[in-house]
Amino acid sequence: MTDEQYMQKAIALAKRAAKYGEVPIGAVIVKDGEIIATGRNRREAKQSPLCHAEIEAITKACKKCGSWRLSGCTIYVTHEPCVMCAGAIVAARIDRVVYGSTERRFGAYTTAGIDKLELNYTCAVTGGVLGDMCSDMLSSFFAELRKTKNNSQGE
Amino acid sequence: MTDEQYMQKAIALAKRAAKYGEVPIGAVIVKDGEIIATGRNRREAKQSPLCHAEIEAITKACKKCGSWRLSGCTIYVTHEPCVMCAGAIVAARIDRVVYGSTERRFGAYTTAGIDKLELNYTCAVTGGVLGDMCSDMLSSFFAELRKTKNNSQGE
Repeated sequence: MTDEQYMQKAIALAKRAAKYGEVPIGAVIVKDGEIIATGRNRREAKQSPLCHAEIEAITKACKKCGSWRLSGCTIYVTHEPCVMCAGAIVAARIDRVVYGSTERRFGAYTTAGIDKLELNYTCAVTGGVLGDMCSDMLSSFFAELRKTKNNSQGE
Repeated sequence: MTDEQYMQKAIALAKRAAKYGEVPIGAVIVKDGEIIATGRNRREAKQSPLCHAEIEAITKACKKCGSWRLSGCTIYVTHEPCVMCAGAIVAARIDRVVYGSTERRFGAYTTAGIDKLELNYTCAVTGGVLGDMCSDMLSSFFAELRKTKNNSQGE
């Protein structure tokens, strides 16, 4: 499968998050061509700042592999990781991260430059895979949210 | 209670981690003068890169508060947070982080400069509280580990 095809899987998870009123972000972890774990944003449902899509996918992948080391894995995520998630990707020794849309204010790579730091481990970073599709999904979600808020304020 | 007294509590948790063969790092979260959550490093036991002391304490504190927002809280941790944990502290909107010893290679503040980034939220950072004590605890742990390894190789 191609990067775009794995990203499509992550997009499907993001859409599921949106169904539950969560910001639509999804992630899959791939090893040897197989999706070994999936995750979607559940911050509101779980009331936990840790429940980002990437963290859920990493937790599941570690359980599946029986190890905290996920070397040989690639993580696909619909939106550029935050600093916490980029740190978790490093901590899990994931080889490569592929993301869709760019986080223009708080992105770990494009804002914070985490990939340029000399940390104990670095992973390859590819951004912009189906970026417009991922970006449009977020824009629609927030537009809908604003509409709902305005309607309820107008009542 | 003073910063040093809260740090002593975190040190007690770190010592407990060492008893279980984990790198001795402990954390407590304080709100309105009360310790509302504790955590210790359990990476090996759980085989999860997420099981750092800070993450455990944040998870517990969010459960206790019923919210992913921990504003008004201070986290005390025996060793300077990594990028993932510093990101989680930001994601949880924790007001202040107080750490003991400095992480000289992969520290989120002294190496990566996370506190200097213009992220969506910043927290006050105080380092070096009972720093020597925390540092000695880590040094002793690793010295002991090396001794055990050398002995087993010599057998």
